[in-house]
Amino acid sequence: MIAIDWGTSSFRAYRLASDGRVLDTRSAPKGILSVQNAQFAAALQAQAGDWIAAGDGPVVMSGMIGSRQGWLEVPYAACPAGLEEIAAGMREVAWSGGTGWIAPGLTCRDKAGVPDVMRGEEVQILGALEQLGSGSHTVCLPGTHSKWVQVVDGRIVQFTTHMTGEAFAVFKTHSLLGRMMKDGANDAGAFADGVRRAADSGGLLHHLFGVRARGLFGELTETAAVSYLSGMLIGHEIQSVHGGRGRVFLLCSAQLADIYGQAFAALGIEVTTLDPDSVTRGLFSLAAYL
Amino acid sequence: MIAIDWGTSSFRAYRLASDGRVLDTRSAPKGILSVQNAQFAAALQAQAGDWIAAGDGPVVMSGMIGSRQGWLEVPYAACPAGLEEIAAGMREVAWSGGTGWIAPGLTCRDKAGVPDVMRGEEVQILGALEQLGSGSHTVCLPGTHSKWVQVVDGRIVQFTTHMTGEAFAVFKTHSLLGRMMKDGANDAGAFADGVRRAADSGGLLHHLFGVRARGLFGELTETAAVSYLSGMLIGHEIQSVHGGRGRVFLLCSAQLADIYGQAFAALGIEVTTLDPDSVTRGLFSLAAYL
Repeated sequence: MIAIDWGTSSFRAYRLASDGRVLDTRSAPKGILSVQNAQFAAALQAQAGDWIAAGDGPVVMSGMIGSRQGWLEVPYAACPAGLEEIAAGMREVAWSGGTGWIAPGLTCRDKAGVPDVMRGEEVQILGALEQLGSGSHTVCLPGTHSKWVQVVDGRIVQFTTHMTGEAFAVFKTHSLLGRMMKDGANDAGAFADGVRRAADSGGLLHHLFGVRARGLFGELTETAAVSYLSGMLIGHEIQSVHGGRGRVFLLCSAQLADIYGQAFAALGIEVTTLDPDSVTRGLFSLAAYL
Repeated sequence: MIAIDWGTSSFRAYRLASDGRVLDTRSAPKGILSVQNAQFAAALQAQAGDWIAAGDGPVVMSGMIGSRQGWLEVPYAACPAGLEEIAAGMREVAWSGGTGWIAPGLTCRDKAGVPDVMRGEEVQILGALEQLGSGSHTVCLPGTHSKWVQVVDGRIVQFTTHMTGEAFAVFKTHSLLGRMMKDGANDAGAFADGVRRAADSGGLLHHLFGVRARGLFGELTETAAVSYLSGMLIGHEIQSVHGGRGRVFLLCSAQLADIYGQAFAALGIEVTTLDPDSVTRGLFSLAAYL
């Protein structure tokens, strides 16, 4: 089969053997936002047309390609959902060169009834189910919009999204805080200070101003301020969602696993890092339903 | 005397009678950031040179004019501080046309030892002391960087700053949330929903993503989303600092008093609005120490 992970800013294609092994991989900065005039079929043909022509089995896609801005808006499946419910939500697209399937995203509502959504992460989690095993688990997928997911016996029962990475970018680039910052090597001490700062009273909006005040008083260098801000935002994310629920399973790139690993270490939270290439296994298990 | 409120983006001059009454007022968009080559004396002469030449008494200034980017960096006075301590921190500047005094800012440290600062608000509070009276009071000065100040028997004992207004601006202008927003009339219902949202679990970073998710599900119009975001940030500010401490005294423009008044009303918190023109009275009481 051909497994496609198609997000906002990146495109990854995998040719899989009949037992799910990855035979070949291609990636390109061809996220859905960079595909002109919504010519998604042409973009797919350009990246993986030879595999498709060779009859390498079904094409299954996940990520923002199934969003309103993507190829076809595939309705979100609703939590709780496991492999079966997510597979049932796939929708077919056809073009002159072939046909393919797009996975649905997932939605839930928090205790207050406010909706939440994901597109792509649900397939990564499907691919990590074997590693997770049965029981109740907390999975964190850090990023621009971090996801915290409760998985119980192989089904996604609830999740929350946190704008941590995006908040870091906008405050660093567009707020007063950015004027006192300079990129440099990560300052592990300042990062851990920021993570722990989240446990103090006063709230995030106050803690943010403290970045500036500490800078004014010479307590933070321009490069340390970047690490401190990053740690503070990640600390608030963890603080607001973790609630002492024990071990956290991290599902992300090695680089993000390193950063979040430092944050969990500063808070004394146990972590297991999941195989970051789980999306191919998730798409492979979805293909079994076609 | 001549009272000058000189901030980052605005300049206001007041000619006061010997009993403190305001005889004349001038304002200009001549904040310290728009004064070229730090020619502050020339800028002051241009705005109020005739008053100074007429010998209208001492010139006393407050605000960011006393910051590192201003005319003279005047060291912060430390909390707790009342009129006497703030007056003792004034520093003199002299130029060919005259001399003047610049008020110090104020600093404190929160429970965790992280510093906080203000420049200008402390003089507004001095001018509101009579209206506040004795006892312990919570004063809120909303804005780009909102200040929450504890005043006990005429002295500022502690305060916290919250980047509420700036966070609103950066998320509205530079984040994904801004793409689903359109300016329009304030939506009072959506604003109150946002204020109350701050009391839910999940934290601010999660609540922010909820703005997007509610938009995706058609639960927020493009203009309602602006009001909802504004209410949410103000709600988080109030939530994190108020802690049921009873009545809040609001010290700000009528426009901000209206917005924050709606937020306090949504939370059932009692409010007293202080006279917004308190800065002249604060500068007048400082002049008595010269």
